[in-house]
Amino acid sequence: MEALKQRIIKDGIIKEGNVLKVDSFLNHQLDINLFEKMGEEFKKRFEGQEINKILTIEASGIAIACIVARHFNVPVVFAKKSKTKNIAGEVYTSKVESFTHGRVYDIIVSKDFLNPEDKVLIIDDFLANGQALIGLSNLVKDAGATLVGAGIAIEKGFQKGGDLLREQGVRVESLAIIDEMDVEKGIKFR
Amino acid sequence: MEALKQRIIKDGIIKEGNVLKVDSFLNHQLDINLFEKMGEEFKKRFEGQEINKILTIEASGIAIACIVARHFNVPVVFAKKSKTKNIAGEVYTSKVESFTHGRVYDIIVSKDFLNPEDKVLIIDDFLANGQALIGLSNLVKDAGATLVGAGIAIEKGFQKGGDLLREQGVRVESLAIIDEMDVEKGIKFR
Repeated sequence: MEALKQRIIKDGIIKEGNVLKVDSFLNHQLDINLFEKMGEEFKKRFEGQEINKILTIEASGIAIACIVARHFNVPVVFAKKSKTKNIAGEVYTSKVESFTHGRVYDIIVSKDFLNPEDKVLIIDDFLANGQALIGLSNLVKDAGATLVGAGIAIEKGFQKGGDLLREQGVRVESLAIIDEMDVEKGIKFR
Repeated sequence: MEALKQRIIKDGIIKEGNVLKVDSFLNHQLDINLFEKMGEEFKKRFEGQEINKILTIEASGIAIACIVARHFNVPVVFAKKSKTKNIAGEVYTSKVESFTHGRVYDIIVSKDFLNPEDKVLIIDDFLANGQALIGLSNLVKDAGATLVGAGIAIEKGFQKGGDLLREQGVRVESLAIIDEMDVEKGIKFR
């Protein structure tokens, strides 16, 4: 998606260690107009697919998921990263290893909000090693629901997540796939 | 706001210890159509006010803030609950005590995204003891920005947060204020 790629080039900051900072528009300050365009694009790419629920993971995934959900006219469910008092006993759970934060955490979704009848589109801001996406797809599987696909804003194509998921038969639609990223040479999109 | 009150009565679950579970539509599964109506209502209540940024706090605040932001045509900034690798050195920070989770945490916003020129509307899903809202308004103050007001979905009017903030001169607009809440007697709105 051209508008997103141009924005990454304009405002993205490449840091050592394959870190791409896009916090001025994607995951700290949020450009809602850009998210609207992303919603339109996902709607186009998953045209004709039956989708009745969008699943994402806190925190920054929620922002994009909510705007995208308007275009599909469906509710959003977000997986939480730890058990809180406000979640009742019965949950689906999966483990996710975060390379950004260097730790393993549980993600959970209440069993009330994922059912065998659900046709689920997963939305997230980043796809790198694919750990969050695999965790979310495990929740969908555990619920007996159908995974229609995954819509990702930025995929780091040089990391293994995208290939891994596609090999498993998951339809992954990424709006910008970065094949090379270098502090000096900049970004090369697929 | 009548639609929200009706929804709380229909789908809210009252638990012992003044806990109101609204996770089927507000903070785990998210009813985007309801959020749209909330956005319209906040736009009406803050009509004529100059607002160029919406500030919220992860995680569930993000969902409402993003939909509300469409109605004001402004970006969202969300405060994060702990320092991650992806945030650069310079941040505004404040301490927040969470009664739900029984702990104190830091909230942070990058200095890049709050400026003295900003006219900020804070959006959050709940107002109870007001700790999160006070923390967020401290960030606005530290940035030298102007706090236009706070838009809250559900205020627990029997807890002290709302009064505390209003006494400090903050304009707090809550779409549903609960004055009494009891497992057997149900909910009484203000």
